[in-house]
Amino acid sequence: MSRVLVRQLKNHLGQSVVVKGWIAKVRDLGGIKFILLRDLSGLVQVVVESETACELKTEAAVCVEGAVAEAPNVIGGVEIHARSLAVVSQADYELLPFEVNRDTIPAGLDTVLNHRMLSLRNERVRAVFKIQHQIVSAFREFFSANHFTEIQTPKLVASGTEGGTELFAVEYFNRKAYLAQSPQLYKQMMVGSGLERVYEVGHAYRAELHDTVRHMNEYVSLDVEMGFIEDENDLMAIETEFLKSLFSRLRQQCGEALALFGAELPVIDAVPRLELEEARRILLRRYEKQSPPGNLDPEGERLISDHVKKEAGSDFVFITKYPVAKRPFYAMPDKQKSELTNSFDLLYRGLEITTGGQRIHSYQALKENIARFGLNPESFGYYLDCFKYGMPPHGGFAIGLERLTMKILGLANIREATLLPRDRARLEP
Amino acid sequence: MSRVLVRQLKNHLGQSVVVKGWIAKVRDLGGIKFILLRDLSGLVQVVVESETACELKTEAAVCVEGAVAEAPNVIGGVEIHARSLAVVSQADYELLPFEVNRDTIPAGLDTVLNHRMLSLRNERVRAVFKIQHQIVSAFREFFSANHFTEIQTPKLVASGTEGGTELFAVEYFNRKAYLAQSPQLYKQMMVGSGLERVYEVGHAYRAELHDTVRHMNEYVSLDVEMGFIEDENDLMAIETEFLKSLFSRLRQQCGEALALFGAELPVIDAVPRLELEEARRILLRRYEKQSPPGNLDPEGERLISDHVKKEAGSDFVFITKYPVAKRPFYAMPDKQKSELTNSFDLLYRGLEITTGGQRIHSYQALKENIARFGLNPESFGYYLDCFKYGMPPHGGFAIGLERLTMKILGLANIREATLLPRDRARLEP
Repeated sequence: MSRVLVRQLKNHLGQSVVVKGWIAKVRDLGGIKFILLRDLSGLVQVVVESETACELKTEAAVCVEGAVAEAPNVIGGVEIHARSLAVVSQADYELLPFEVNRDTIPAGLDTVLNHRMLSLRNERVRAVFKIQHQIVSAFREFFSANHFTEIQTPKLVASGTEGGTELFAVEYFNRKAYLAQSPQLYKQMMVGSGLERVYEVGHAYRAELHDTVRHMNEYVSLDVEMGFIEDENDLMAIETEFLKSLFSRLRQQCGEALALFGAELPVIDAVPRLELEEARRILLRRYEKQSPPGNLDPEGERLISDHVKKEAGSDFVFITKYPVAKRPFYAMPDKQKSELTNSFDLLYRGLEITTGGQRIHSYQALKENIARFGLNPESFGYYLDCFKYGMPPHGGFAIGLERLTMKILGLANIREATLLPRDRARLEP
Repeated sequence: MSRVLVRQLKNHLGQSVVVKGWIAKVRDLGGIKFILLRDLSGLVQVVVESETACELKTEAAVCVEGAVAEAPNVIGGVEIHARSLAVVSQADYELLPFEVNRDTIPAGLDTVLNHRMLSLRNERVRAVFKIQHQIVSAFREFFSANHFTEIQTPKLVASGTEGGTELFAVEYFNRKAYLAQSPQLYKQMMVGSGLERVYEVGHAYRAELHDTVRHMNEYVSLDVEMGFIEDENDLMAIETEFLKSLFSRLRQQCGEALALFGAELPVIDAVPRLELEEARRILLRRYEKQSPPGNLDPEGERLISDHVKKEAGSDFVFITKYPVAKRPFYAMPDKQKSELTNSFDLLYRGLEITTGGQRIHSYQALKENIARFGLNPESFGYYLDCFKYGMPPHGGFAIGLERLTMKILGLANIREATLLPRDRARLEP
């Protein structure tokens, strides 16, 4: 008899089925036991009237054969009357590190992360990653449908994208390699290759000393790059369309999971755009908030998001036109004001989740700009060469997957949105 | 006027449109020019009768406005009568490193890889990665539809999966980290977590000194792991179903691209299974081929594939029951013959593209096996702990993306199936 998933049981009323999963709870009333069984799809009550030889310990893995019966008052509306129950993998502990079957795990984040497998047995914790799976799927499907090709670019690189700081060094045979901070230069090359529109879901590495709730040293970057754009407005437009399709998918597919977090999904129409200078003026005028030169700091990001939420009802805001001095060498200068760039950040509920912009596409202009930034054009040989062969006007952006997940669910720490986070203190599990 | 992709032009007959792309060829007949324009979707002929001020150089990026007309004798069956043509990014070279617009690029593989962006302007080269995109999409869609959750596991790890050999070392703040050889231990943990069925598309790293046409030091691994299996037969069954769905998708979506390679897709019914010992006996008896102890070598893989193709008409064959001595510590021993394991390799047209098997799920058995393999159970702390909490019977497999692509298309070198390959000699571009 082949296995039926718990969520499908209501299609098998009156039939004999096999279910497999973990023991979430046992109530032993002497002659009769009520077991709450958990599988990848949900929870079901199993009623065992016969004697069971083996010990029924919480979190043991079991296989149950029995009949599916209606049971209006229990979870899922059905229960299983067991004919047989076998423990296929016994639980081999004296005391669990924490209780799993509560709304939230009664332990600190470090303990939760150390026992990552066990903490994921908790429904709410597991839901984070089921939703994250849907976010990644939405990303791929949206961009594939819009003629983008998915690429995988190397994470072992010969030098840093933006000048060599904050890189992890790797012993690569008899030389040094580095872990890629982003697929920036490669995704630009792939636009020029004629693939023209590309995306990547891949790891990015930053050897930063940060110890904050919004930074990690390894994270997943959802990267997009497209050719033949007019300017950065095309990029903001397509990111907005992606966000609409993402939230529509999450509404359809993740209602129950989102409810565990009380998460309210934003309704997106147009995303407001504010030039950085204007944002800084608003912060000063309305909040007496001083910002660092040519940028916003985390407090500024929160305040300007609050402001936009109040004024325009939007959870998102694009901050545009960052100065040349605050952007990398490949950022396209603004046509009118050459000290500004055609770049943007996207803030979501007070947190930057995207950096993007138009890139320089002229060989000469790029070469000059590399030198202007104090870098050596010769060390960009293969990259720079690409611009000799008709590199079209192009640009792109990157979305931090864990940050996006974190803000959608209202999590307090980015590590909660990461299966197995890496930071200065954590390399395990 | 918004841009129309070349492939969509036949829906715009008689209309005025904008197309954008690269100049593949120019024929200048004095008063009239015929330009072959290439965009991400295909090629179209553009007829320019007016004077053009700027130089029309091959591989420059252009924007054309004009009317779409039927043209039965040209590629795609339509052409554009240009009203205006603008060079949006000039080509800035004296001589191309090689000619792009031929069936195959007249240059060696090293040159092709050094000029990766330019070589991708060749239709056949670009097609490799469009097909690879479809392979990855097929993988994700098949496993998502079968209740698998996509995961992203860290590539920075504290120690090696299989005992610490062939690892790239990373300077991680004040300690050493390593690049993950595979997500093996993590995907097992995620099965135990209650996600139960997981897959990953991620990089894997091997610091091997190999210099062959089938090895690289960084590659993309399509990983699968599932819980509550009976044994390895469940795994071979689901991999076979995936391959069927993959080839069906490629047939539907990639006909033109496959034709560029003369690639014939295999028709899969059941994939034959041969125990390793039987395969070795066949090799000896039929081909006088000696195999290394407990394994096949590359020549043996090719010969046994030929044999299966002749005898059973199959391009694929599962080789099963590898000995304990040749498999990692987590491999599940066979019930009857404890010197063998419930493991398998999948050969495709003479090349191993998958290694898989059932894993040990008992805490005690795993702990003992780690010690039996000369490893220290204490260094597997977090991993081993997971087996205390009802780890279900489980197993999985990994498919090498570039190897699969290579064999589908009949490419001679795995580097042709890799956007930007990494090997001992190559860290750039």
